[in-house]
Amino acid sequence: MKENKYDNELFFAKYSQMERSRKGLQGAGEWSALKKILPAFKGKKVLDLGCGYGWHCKYAADNGAEYVLGTDISHKMLEVARQNNSDKNIEYKCISMEDLILPADSFDIILSSLAFHYVKDFEPLVENIYKWLKINGEFVFSAEHPVFTSYGSQDWYYDSEGNILHFPVDNYYYEGKRDAVFLGEHVTKYHRTLTTYLNTLIQKGFELQHIIEPQPPEEMMNIAGMKDEMRRPMMLLVSSVKK
Amino acid sequence: MKENKYDNELFFAKYSQMERSRKGLQGAGEWSALKKILPAFKGKKVLDLGCGYGWHCKYAADNGAEYVLGTDISHKMLEVARQNNSDKNIEYKCISMEDLILPADSFDIILSSLAFHYVKDFEPLVENIYKWLKINGEFVFSAEHPVFTSYGSQDWYYDSEGNILHFPVDNYYYEGKRDAVFLGEHVTKYHRTLTTYLNTLIQKGFELQHIIEPQPPEEMMNIAGMKDEMRRPMMLLVSSVKK
Repeated sequence: MKENKYDNELFFAKYSQMERSRKGLQGAGEWSALKKILPAFKGKKVLDLGCGYGWHCKYAADNGAEYVLGTDISHKMLEVARQNNSDKNIEYKCISMEDLILPADSFDIILSSLAFHYVKDFEPLVENIYKWLKINGEFVFSAEHPVFTSYGSQDWYYDSEGNILHFPVDNYYYEGKRDAVFLGEHVTKYHRTLTTYLNTLIQKGFELQHIIEPQPPEEMMNIAGMKDEMRRPMMLLVSSVKK
Repeated sequence: MKENKYDNELFFAKYSQMERSRKGLQGAGEWSALKKILPAFKGKKVLDLGCGYGWHCKYAADNGAEYVLGTDISHKMLEVARQNNSDKNIEYKCISMEDLILPADSFDIILSSLAFHYVKDFEPLVENIYKWLKINGEFVFSAEHPVFTSYGSQDWYYDSEGNILHFPVDNYYYEGKRDAVFLGEHVTKYHRTLTTYLNTLIQKGFELQHIIEPQPPEEMMNIAGMKDEMRRPMMLLVSSVKK
């Protein structure tokens, strides 16, 4: 049974208070890095897997996408997406990305922002993405970094006075379910190695174009805790092309 | 000034006692994974950067390489290479890989095994490797994993009774010099991010073919400490093609 934490009242309320929820793309630390590796959207058919509030769908539509399909498992997230990020060229659909059925060769660009770590099986998903894309179509995603997901709790390791000592890595090669604490709530996430993320793409026929571990941007360094993000990689950004 | 730790008497003596030094490729935990991504050597011109004892040079020659140039900064390592791993098709040369000058388009295959973390500047080296390779030539390397090099000491984090708690990551985005402890000796190594390792290759014109974080092989699990290697990634293997 797939977890749908974003339809949980309390979690959803907390999530809506995050910088990235209130400010959108400008409030997301990785946006400046992600933006640089996004393809041109003009005239393109775009699929956004795990679109959440729809910020990336709207960005694609605003930049000339002909059609954008945003999918998410959470009704609550899509409610906000429809309110705040609607467009005549955007369609939102409530479905988990694992259950999605789409025609082959139907999209020019497939995006996914910070959603793959909620997905149990990566390989069949990549097979589908490959199938749904046209030849030379681009697949760009961000996910939580394997360093960030391996231990499980996703928290720093502290000394007895509460100072950060370092970030812990453990059970790296044991992929699968982790009980993460996010916004003070328990959330199921899935750890997979970097090998699995990158090599699966290559094996399924994608050519890797960019592999980026985004650093916190200079202008966000004054946000509480942001300087510590120089100490661990939290996210992985990948762009690739269907060959 | 480049460090040449392998010419240090004590360090060299300790290194020569390691499983991988005594048994060669069969004693190296990553060999079974590396072997799978090596290209066919028959009739090829091969360069091995930081060849050490020359195990990989000998493997290339034994598998039909027409010419193998093995380079290393350490006289002592090359002395052993010439004794144990010589071949009519192998030439060993004592020089640091940063100082190497070679004609353009002169090699089919360039290898490097666990040497790049001793190199300060990766980008100019990759530029040279690209230049030295023929078009469609292959570049295959292993290096210590960024997770393994980031903190610096390269040791586990223990509880007060000496049990392993986890592996520490810190200062991930601060690339550069680390004071590592290897075989009980201080050795200068250089940390760089995964972004730097992989994206530099792509930017300089390589297409990535395999990205592997090797797990300890089943048949080595009885070696002391090997089971713990399931808890952290220690190495990164990459194969790529000059396009």
